[in-house]
Amino acid sequence: MCQSSAYLIKEDGREELVMEDVNIVKPRGAQILMVDILGTEKLIAARIKELQLVDHRIILEEVD
Amino acid sequence: MCQSSAYLIKEDGREELVMEDVNIVKPRGAQILMVDILGTEKLIAARIKELQLVDHRIILEEVD
Repeated sequence: MCQSSAYLIKEDGREELVMEDVNIVKPRGAQILMVDILGTEKLIAARIKELQLVDHRIILEEVD
Repeated sequence: MCQSSAYLIKEDGREELVMEDVNIVKPRGAQILMVDILGTEKLIAARIKELQLVDHRIILEEVD
């Protein structure tokens, strides 16, 4: 299984784990909709900064 | 290994495979930089439409 963990880079540079076992990621304007492998949804005001798929990492950054 | 394949949705709705074994994905303005597991880079004028991680699919759409 290739679900990933999503981390949000805060404005002060700290990295915060915001969701585990993420399956679906959909940008929606200034927000990101994520759905985990159980179907739980989370909507975050952020944009995708980088994906590191082999390391199972989704890096998000806060929208200004 | 959790690398994915990247598909570009063309303006006519067709889906085109643009890169396999993608490890890193970085949005860069109106472009997407992708790096595969061998380090090969590809820069595409597109944005991320959706990630389907369990299915190893990165869906990109052409930028208007």
